Amino acid sequence: MECGAAAWALLERVRRSAPLVHCITNLVSMDLVANALLAAGASPAMVHSLREVPEFAPRAAALVVNVGTLSEPWLPAMRAAAAAAADAGRPWVLDPVAASASEFRMDACLGLLALRPTVVRGNPSEIIALASASRIRDAKGVDSSHESIDAVEAAKSLALSSGAVVAVSGAVDFITDGQNVIGAHNGVPMMRKITATGCAVTALIAAFVAVDPTNTLEATACALSIFGLAGELGMEMAKGPASLRMHLIDSLYGLDEKTVASRVRNKRVSLNSYLHLSK
Amino acid sequence: MECGAAAWALLERVRRSAPLVHCITNLVSMDLVANALLAAGASPAMVHSLREVPEFAPRAAALVVNVGTLSEPWLPAMRAAAAAAADAGRPWVLDPVAASASEFRMDACLGLLALRPTVVRGNPSEIIALASASRIRDAKGVDSSHESIDAVEAAKSLALSSGAVVAVSGAVDFITDGQNVIGAHNGVPMMRKITATGCAVTALIAAFVAVDPTNTLEATACALSIFGLAGELGMEMAKGPASLRMHLIDSLYGLDEKTVASRVRNKRVSLNSYLHLSK
Amino acid sequence: MECGAAAWALLERVRRSAPLVHCITNLVSMDLVANALLAAGASPAMVHSLREVPEFAPRAAALVVNVGTLSEPWLPAMRAAAAAAADAGRPWVLDPVAASASEFRMDACLGLLALRPTVVRGNPSEIIALASASRIRDAKGVDSSHESIDAVEAAKSLALSSGAVVAVSGAVDFITDGQNVIGAHNGVPMMRKITATGCAVTALIAAFVAVDPTNTLEATACALSIFGLAGELGMEMAKGPASLRMHLIDSLYGLDEKTVASRVRNKRVSLNSYLHLSK
Repeated sequence: MECGAAAWALLERVRRSAPLVHCITNLVSMDLVANALLAAGASPAMVHSLREVPEFAPRAAALVVNVGTLSEPWLPAMRAAAAAAADAGRPWVLDPVAASASEFRMDACLGLLALRPTVVRGNPSEIIALASASRIRDAKGVDSSHESIDAVEAAKSLALSSGAVVAVSGAVDFITDGQNVIGAHNGVPMMRKITATGCAVTALIAAFVAVDPTNTLEATACALSIFGLAGELGMEMAKGPASLRMHLIDSLYGLDEKTVASRVRNKRVSLNSYLHLSK
Repeated sequence: MECGAAAWALLERVRRSAPLVHCITNLVSMDLVANALLAAGASPAMVHSLREVPEFAPRAAALVVNVGTLSEPWLPAMRAAAAAAADAGRPWVLDPVAASASEFRMDACLGLLALRPTVVRGNPSEIIALASASRIRDAKGVDSSHESIDAVEAAKSLALSSGAVVAVSGAVDFITDGQNVIGAHNGVPMMRKITATGCAVTALIAAFVAVDPTNTLEATACALSIFGLAGELGMEMAKGPASLRMHLIDSLYGLDEKTVASRVRNKRVSLNSYLHLSK
Repeated sequence: MECGAAAWALLERVRRSAPLVHCITNLVSMDLVANALLAAGASPAMVHSLREVPEFAPRAAALVVNVGTLSEPWLPAMRAAAAAAADAGRPWVLDPVAASASEFRMDACLGLLALRPTVVRGNPSEIIALASASRIRDAKGVDSSHESIDAVEAAKSLALSSGAVVAVSGAVDFITDGQNVIGAHNGVPMMRKITATGCAVTALIAAFVAVDPTNTLEATACALSIFGLAGELGMEMAKGPASLRMHLIDSLYGLDEKTVASRVRNKRVSLNSYLHLSK
């Protein structure tokens, strides 16, 4: 199937089945995450209390854990939710926001990674930091943090060590299961001037993987492309980051088959062409 | 008085007196709740620490308690605020978001209900769950949760058992004190695609009841209609849920007498006509 | 240098150096604060856990502490962040939201004030309350809270006692180091109908002071003018508070030299002319 047709099929499935996405996300992103999920046709539920997470998580179709405004009281609930989702066979997605901001945060991310997320999505520095820290931990203390390491190589390494599909956001998003790499080419630079767009696309990945759990790699790439395409459409009307945010959500809500089929640009990256691209 | 004229009179009173509305609301909704109150002319104050709630609550004209992102540390402050508001003779409004999401949450809602909210507003499943759970508790354990129960009947039952005016949001909003039922017909379906619109209208109810405490039933209906009308006006300009959100708030701010008087559609529902409507 | 040229020079410096602004801000304002900083070219980071604040604060170029939705668990992190920023020689800005809402909150504000913020920004009632409470504390209990005290005089008094530059927002913003007073004349009244605009400008002050730490008074005035000017430009397109919010952020992002140079209106206020203005 063409990537555009595949992306449309998944978006349609999200709209039809309205998967309940359990979000434990940061305080900055709650509004945009909820509205992005609603605009895509999914059902968001923000539930972060340890008192209800174990009971609630198995009812959801997927889980997002985002450590953006991490604090100690939230961490046990994040872990419990991840464990409950995994136990119930539900996909869950980790967004290791600013993983290297502190030792506390990196430890939290590594602990969550050990609970086997289905997908990890971050920006290059987050994925590189997480991949490096994973290897340090594996190597019992050997410091590789000063190695110059490419984000895609880090993503592949992290995918292999964690068992997760790993997505690295950037001008081109790269998604890998450790063997295969897909490049997702939609999106516009101004999206980085809007807070929480990364968090929102992470939540969208959860919705897409929820409706296609056996094709995590492709579903993740489709979610990134769909969100990026909504950004491109929004950009046609935007006069700055705040109007882009509005038009992006409106566009995500209104996406039609023709636009998705013709404008989604995902493709498998061969090692050689990737190396060429990254030069 | 015609319902449009009554709604306008209350909106004018909110604009003139700018009632201070104390909000303990969920983390997703804070921005929209505050902006909706400001747009209507009220003064929002988000205060959730147990250290200041007892001192602050009596100074406010009304209180909203919304359990959307409930967690243990917030619950004692919710209870203290409700008790302080009640002691000070201030109206308070409960929004039992996702009441049946967990046992913890339902227990919290029932505990808050026992503190005698002036108004309870929820969607049909929340009101049905709360009404059922109230009866279970009253009946010391008889499980009625599988009864097929109509939302308006549930609302009437909950109103009678709790002493609150109960509002059920939907295509038509129904508001009841247990005896009388008002149907509020304003609003557009796309409002359900914007997170926190329910929370925002709950806060607006608090502002309206604050300026007309002796007519809780009508004030609640007017708040729902005014918010729904702002949604209708916003919808005339919207291209999707995010622009609807913006235009709704702009419209709420700009509502004029002529529009309110001619377009608010509330009416008392007789039992027969209601049964007819619900078929 | 003309005030417009000075404001443009600072905005350019923020855009070029993208100062990392560590924000411990209230739950209502997180989205707008982050988006305002991004639109101005700065890099926001919302980090509030005591577990990472001491490690993170020194890495940031500036810190904002905003007590808007204060609760006990956040206060130690606010204090630790302020202490760490001060130790590292970083500027930090205090926003004493609703300082007089409770004894707990006023005590918290006074405790933070003792950690020597670089700038304090508030509305007149907050600055008056804080100045009065500071004097009460200094005077060991003499109650001056009923004195009729002018906001600018309160700001000067607070600046002298605390060592901070103090900014009072209003129709005209006044900024003082205790000796000099600058009046910043940009802005539109409807900005007060949008929640968190005060919090956003406080964060912008941090970004501006970060890039010009030796001219705190002027940098603070420039930040207030730039934000107010973005509001004026936004107002030209706005139909209400929600569209103003969007256009304000878009305008902040798009500000150009000509507009800033010609429309920023800051000026030193002589005592006499100030007295004249305030009559």
